[in-house]
Amino acid sequence: MNNTNLLLSIAVLGGTGKEGKGLAYRWARAGYHVRIGSRTAEKAIAAANEIKEMLGDGVSVEGMSNLEAAHNSDIAVLTVPYSAHRDTLESVKDELKGKILVDVTVPLVPPKVATVQMPAAGSAAQEAKQILGDDVQVCAAFQNIGHDHLLGDSEVECDVLVTGSSKDARAETIKLVEATGLRGWDAGPIENSMVIEGLTSILIGINKKYGSTHAGIKITGAQHQ
Amino acid sequence: MNNTNLLLSIAVLGGTGKEGKGLAYRWARAGYHVRIGSRTAEKAIAAANEIKEMLGDGVSVEGMSNLEAAHNSDIAVLTVPYSAHRDTLESVKDELKGKILVDVTVPLVPPKVATVQMPAAGSAAQEAKQILGDDVQVCAAFQNIGHDHLLGDSEVECDVLVTGSSKDARAETIKLVEATGLRGWDAGPIENSMVIEGLTSILIGINKKYGSTHAGIKITGAQHQ
Repeated sequence: MNNTNLLLSIAVLGGTGKEGKGLAYRWARAGYHVRIGSRTAEKAIAAANEIKEMLGDGVSVEGMSNLEAAHNSDIAVLTVPYSAHRDTLESVKDELKGKILVDVTVPLVPPKVATVQMPAAGSAAQEAKQILGDDVQVCAAFQNIGHDHLLGDSEVECDVLVTGSSKDARAETIKLVEATGLRGWDAGPIENSMVIEGLTSILIGINKKYGSTHAGIKITGAQHQ
Repeated sequence: MNNTNLLLSIAVLGGTGKEGKGLAYRWARAGYHVRIGSRTAEKAIAAANEIKEMLGDGVSVEGMSNLEAAHNSDIAVLTVPYSAHRDTLESVKDELKGKILVDVTVPLVPPKVATVQMPAAGSAAQEAKQILGDDVQVCAAFQNIGHDHLLGDSEVECDVLVTGSSKDARAETIKLVEATGLRGWDAGPIENSMVIEGLTSILIGINKKYGSTHAGIKITGAQHQ
């Protein structure tokens, strides 16, 4: 990692859930400045303290409101349940202008969470792009990662397929993926995000049918150059 | 494999292309009765002869028209380019009643074959179900397998995600997958087929970006019981 990356501030919006806290942990561990955001700043502060206790005081992780986190970041990551997706994005929209938003949301529709059901925009990430407009680059990543393994140092046996609204934004997002210790792949334009979001439903179904708890995917037959 | 499987007749409709011929080869090798279908019976006969030359006269593989192949089969597999998808299905519809149709079609839209673009029905397999109606069970499988490796005995490093309109039909299709030497997974209802069809576009994009020729996927973290 170079110094440019070390200086990056990452907002993890809705970062008090398991997925967000796990990602925040891994980026703090990698030397990024992490701002955990939440609708309630107190919850975000508690999550930040939990990570500091795990990693020691040397790491840079703070809790604050989603709005403050978005404001104080170079790049923002959204880790909320789909039901809070639109409202959260609308609340931070102005603070994201000129930045990249990495959407981790999977549009699961209970109770049929093992059936692929996409929103009218095509996918959650495409919906985010519609909400945020042309001033924000939107990428999507981490949708298939079981949150159980992120908060800690165990190896996660699942690749991350990264889609996004520009090649440069995807390249920046892949850097963030690799900083968590996972393998990231450029999976093409944001239209392709429906496949990766939908894959989560298939993996949930496989867990149910085959008695596993953390089914994932790996890309075979290709290598990073 | 038990005797019931050995007696099954499989029609490979549009089976003169690389994918169809490769699948026909593997099922003939496994002891199935394979009927290769084509719009032109002569082409199908030539493809069948090619497979017999590779495997010896002991195998059961014949070439004929798509209509005859569908008629003389217990289960049918469709391996045509998307442009021939609807016409081929309509031409054999009556012969498929009471059977399973396994759709291998990926709805690629040139020139943007690395961008996911699904038909109005949701996916090629859902379109097949619409065309064939309630009398035919439709499954989808093999969409991510590079055809280069099927015609021959090399190991294919890619799993097969099987979706379909009933659990029983998916179980039958998984048997066919395993007979080719590949690992098959129950990936849920036919609505999920869009994910697997779309994954092919992502793998095409990965091949282009990472200089590979046969990117595939493997399910991790779960095991067959």
